[in-house]
Amino acid sequence: MMPLAISLGDSAGIGPEIAAKAWAARDLHSLPPFFAVGDARAVEKVWDGPLARISDPAEVERAFAQALPLLSVGDAGGEIVPGSPDVESARSALHALEVAAGLTRSGAASALVTGPVSKAQLYRIGFTYPGQTEFVSERCGVASDNTVMMLAGPTLRVVPITVHVALADVPSLISQELIVAKARVTARGLHRNFGIEKPRLAFAGLNPHAGESGAIGREEIDILMPAIEQLRAEGIDAVGPFAADTMFHARARAGYDAALCLYHDQALIPIKTLHFDDGVNTTLGLPIVRTSPDHGTAFGIAGRDEAHPGAMIAAIRMAAAQAERRAEVALAQ
Amino acid sequence: MMPLAISLGDSAGIGPEIAAKAWAARDLHSLPPFFAVGDARAVEKVWDGPLARISDPAEVERAFAQALPLLSVGDAGGEIVPGSPDVESARSALHALEVAAGLTRSGAASALVTGPVSKAQLYRIGFTYPGQTEFVSERCGVASDNTVMMLAGPTLRVVPITVHVALADVPSLISQELIVAKARVTARGLHRNFGIEKPRLAFAGLNPHAGESGAIGREEIDILMPAIEQLRAEGIDAVGPFAADTMFHARARAGYDAALCLYHDQALIPIKTLHFDDGVNTTLGLPIVRTSPDHGTAFGIAGRDEAHPGAMIAAIRMAAAQAERRAEVALAQ
Repeated sequence: MMPLAISLGDSAGIGPEIAAKAWAARDLHSLPPFFAVGDARAVEKVWDGPLARISDPAEVERAFAQALPLLSVGDAGGEIVPGSPDVESARSALHALEVAAGLTRSGAASALVTGPVSKAQLYRIGFTYPGQTEFVSERCGVASDNTVMMLAGPTLRVVPITVHVALADVPSLISQELIVAKARVTARGLHRNFGIEKPRLAFAGLNPHAGESGAIGREEIDILMPAIEQLRAEGIDAVGPFAADTMFHARARAGYDAALCLYHDQALIPIKTLHFDDGVNTTLGLPIVRTSPDHGTAFGIAGRDEAHPGAMIAAIRMAAAQAERRAEVALAQ
Repeated sequence: MMPLAISLGDSAGIGPEIAAKAWAARDLHSLPPFFAVGDARAVEKVWDGPLARISDPAEVERAFAQALPLLSVGDAGGEIVPGSPDVESARSALHALEVAAGLTRSGAASALVTGPVSKAQLYRIGFTYPGQTEFVSERCGVASDNTVMMLAGPTLRVVPITVHVALADVPSLISQELIVAKARVTARGLHRNFGIEKPRLAFAGLNPHAGESGAIGREEIDILMPAIEQLRAEGIDAVGPFAADTMFHARARAGYDAALCLYHDQALIPIKTLHFDDGVNTTLGLPIVRTSPDHGTAFGIAGRDEAHPGAMIAAIRMAAAQAERRAEVALAQ
């Protein structure tokens, strides 16, 4: 398998530190060869370990045992101050993302792991996407409506059907078409990337107690139930809608492979409550494998050697596992 | 301390079974004397243990060591079939609630623990309250706007500021006044009933990432921040608004005594994810102590000896602890 590409994210965030710490823990966690893409100075600023500058992913295999391989995207200029993001650290993040995504798309890397960026800083340099996911989708030639953001931890996978929108806009944004489209991508992704033969999808209701048969909101009856029926007619194992509050305890989680939720916090509250330190964000529906540690830049602790690489390690492991399964599926076809 | 009163809830639900099982576990969990209020036949149908019919709570102290004391509210008629609720089982539930609440209000019982009811069945017999909480509030002469529903488990307490309303209605229902009113009752209740000298209240934002400074919704800026400022000016330790998804992992929970959430699932998802089997529903702002196991009638398993009394035991323990603290506070004044 080709090495994995890790974009370091914002140079002033914890991305460089957790990528380096993940490399340092490569044997403990049996991590496959990977390389970082970003500003080398950002790593050197926060880490004393060995760096091996490479100019081609083909060099990774030889270098990985002795040093963290790094493909430098060039000095973006300015001084790097961990915890103090600016337009330079954002430019570096965007450049790293672009190069890492391109190498993965070309097949020179087997999967893309993206480090945390600051959207506020990216917007200042003209970035127009809601997030890295949409940028990567476009670079892969896939409309972001046809991709799915999944958050996955050791005991739970969730998909938010709407993501970064105001709560007041959620009811008008959900539709049978959107739900069916996201569920199809989820089912296919669980099969292709996770090796689950017949994925079981459980849907959360929008309203308290899933609307109590229409007494507290009708979206379950008017939108969710027809969507679930349509999916079942297509042969997808879809169930619900369920009261969202009783879907996420241990016994309930055993009943499905992914919970499809209607808005950001409905999905993110349970996953972060259970798996704050090892949650992984992965994008389904792309021609490449893409994962990301499910946390932000953590500027408040950047440069203090306090950042925990758990989620980055989990993101690397999940990316490698997905890439292997896709290779198997491709071979079998 | 006077004994606690437990209304059995719907005769066809698991209320009678879990009340009886709680009595059977009284020594293991050091439960204080309590008595059941409801249809004796509902208990006899699902439990072989000893019942002591009483006509006055004063008899509980003598009876409790040998048998589950039960104040029968009279045969509501009809046959009781566990798992098959009807208007008779709902009438029995309402009668039990009324009597148990009255005895607690009068001081003959030190606290009220309410078993699970079926709202659908209650509505059929003319019950016009959204739930038991509102009924009890009215019986206590307190407007339900001045009470707070709190869900509490061993590691988390949450308050939903709006409760059984459609998600689409939530944004228009939340206001600075409502938030301030609910927070005041919560702070007072944590002091009076839980013995917390200066309660720390943490507020969840309404929108993803608490609105990202207005980029994804303005309720945080327009409503929540002024409310929090007003509470702080009154001397209440209020912080936030925080991104709801990162408020409920273990380290975050250590930072507050109660999380104030804006809608049902924002509060109920984390508490039920973490404490599905031992969550307690308690009403603050009443002249009496009231708790309830945080689950429903579970008609699907009623009568099969499968119901777990964990939440009922937790509700009894919490009711007793609250009643003791209130007695101490009253003595100190």
